[in-house]
Amino acid sequence: MILDLDTGIDDAMAIAYAVAAPDVDLIGIVSSYGNVLTPDAGTNSLKILELLGHTDVPVFLGEQHSQTTDHFDVMPISAQIHGKNGIGEVELPKPSRQVESQSGADFIIEAAHKYQSDLVLVPTGPLTNLALALRKDPSIAELIGSVTLMGGALTVPGNVTPVAEANINQDAFAANEVFTSKLNITMVGLDVTLRTLLTKSETKQWRELKTVAGEKFADIVDYYIDVYKVTSPHLHGCALHDPLAVGVAIDPSFVTTLDINMFVDTSKEMRARTIGDPARLTEENPNVTVALTVDQDRYLAEFMTLLTGLFQQN
Amino acid sequence: MILDLDTGIDDAMAIAYAVAAPDVDLIGIVSSYGNVLTPDAGTNSLKILELLGHTDVPVFLGEQHSQTTDHFDVMPISAQIHGKNGIGEVELPKPSRQVESQSGADFIIEAAHKYQSDLVLVPTGPLTNLALALRKDPSIAELIGSVTLMGGALTVPGNVTPVAEANINQDAFAANEVFTSKLNITMVGLDVTLRTLLTKSETKQWRELKTVAGEKFADIVDYYIDVYKVTSPHLHGCALHDPLAVGVAIDPSFVTTLDINMFVDTSKEMRARTIGDPARLTEENPNVTVALTVDQDRYLAEFMTLLTGLFQQN
Repeated sequence: MILDLDTGIDDAMAIAYAVAAPDVDLIGIVSSYGNVLTPDAGTNSLKILELLGHTDVPVFLGEQHSQTTDHFDVMPISAQIHGKNGIGEVELPKPSRQVESQSGADFIIEAAHKYQSDLVLVPTGPLTNLALALRKDPSIAELIGSVTLMGGALTVPGNVTPVAEANINQDAFAANEVFTSKLNITMVGLDVTLRTLLTKSETKQWRELKTVAGEKFADIVDYYIDVYKVTSPHLHGCALHDPLAVGVAIDPSFVTTLDINMFVDTSKEMRARTIGDPARLTEENPNVTVALTVDQDRYLAEFMTLLTGLFQQN
Repeated sequence: MILDLDTGIDDAMAIAYAVAAPDVDLIGIVSSYGNVLTPDAGTNSLKILELLGHTDVPVFLGEQHSQTTDHFDVMPISAQIHGKNGIGEVELPKPSRQVESQSGADFIIEAAHKYQSDLVLVPTGPLTNLALALRKDPSIAELIGSVTLMGGALTVPGNVTPVAEANINQDAFAANEVFTSKLNITMVGLDVTLRTLLTKSETKQWRELKTVAGEKFADIVDYYIDVYKVTSPHLHGCALHDPLAVGVAIDPSFVTTLDINMFVDTSKEMRARTIGDPARLTEENPNVTVALTVDQDRYLAEFMTLLTGLFQQN
């Protein structure tokens, strides 16, 4: 598995889920802009890996901005939700390991050829790195086993505009290239992540472990839960966006799904909308599987088993 | 069953499906504005019923315009798709039966109390009449057995704007009242109707019956198919919007579905969008069931069995 993260708070939980899951061999983390700047995403990933005792996982830097812009600034709402440092203003030691010199896109291409159908790619930020890799080497679309991404919204409104979800909104053109490619995609969007909520009764369990990882993760995630109380009081918890994508990549039976050919709208009016393509509705074997509902109780139980077990040892 | 129709061409096929289906007792047709003006919808329903030998079914006039407007003009695109007379410029004899004096909304209310959970309501036009009935007598929301409506679009774009489907767009406020009521609703929207297509190879079978009904229906529907060639050439046929709603009301196993609490957007920007309500995503027992995919081959076979059998006798 490769994660492609703009490491904020739920990305940090995605790393924890991936390293804790017994069936996953996490071969690398690619960094993206989004919740934070790309270099900060890389540093945060290294810090979280070190906190979790997994300095064996290499971290690569991806693109610094979308293909249609020449730079990227963190949106104020992102800094509010994840903290300015991306991990809830919690201080973690400077990581001992450095980021790799290979680019994120080149790492994806190399891994696609090396692992082929065994490769599971989980992007939980903008799809800029994957789109770039596809453009550099179109053959990877039919090599990579599966892409399970956190992003988009099909049956619910977006969280940036009424139609746009934040990750897709960062680079709608890249997302459209990915969605309309031959990649085998599972979309874990707001449809299901808004149904999968964590509360302080869970983070309390981590805190009570009295381990460094348990206490730091409780601090980081409590920051996120407190922001959700202000930004989304109707949810009564924080959404497990990115770790749900990792969970579904490992065990698709957590969700019910719809297979449908989709596109990402790049028009100004409907920018970043992820929606079915009426012209390809009756085509056989659609390449996108959209998660529509989730067994949130079973997922949350697995999430807690994995993360609490991991934090207990660190 | 009560149909609530703005009788255009696919509404005419919905009438044929309902009167041909052996398990259905069609107790009345309510008329709406939409494809045509309300009085013309009433006249067209009477003409179609007479063509099919079913002058026993009463026809009621509903509202003439949405609750937020003071009059209604047929949109040029509607006149293009259905013909100025609503039935593909095909001439049918002046009906012998007249419309009833009771209003459409009052008929719905009376039938809801009389038949209660046995009542199946199938609106295939604007939801103005049903919303008015709900306002006049809120108790019917929990009396009526089920409402299977043709309208909306959840997983595909709209056909009037990128978010708005034509029926919902006629009266988004009424639609929102219906979707957020306690009614038990099945939404048969563009998600499935654009997958269910009829071609001239089917209408040719009707024409070859050499009956009046067979030839007239072939003429009416060929007009519709010819327009679709211009407006939606990628579909390679005409969509069976309204008769699919009747089919699903009778046999829900034609479709796969998603249960979800929804609302209809009444803002200017997103007017008439039918979308999941993020604040009620985790509530139990959602009141809306959305059709997502359809077994189009089995439906089309049943559609042809019923309609061809009916036309053979008339």
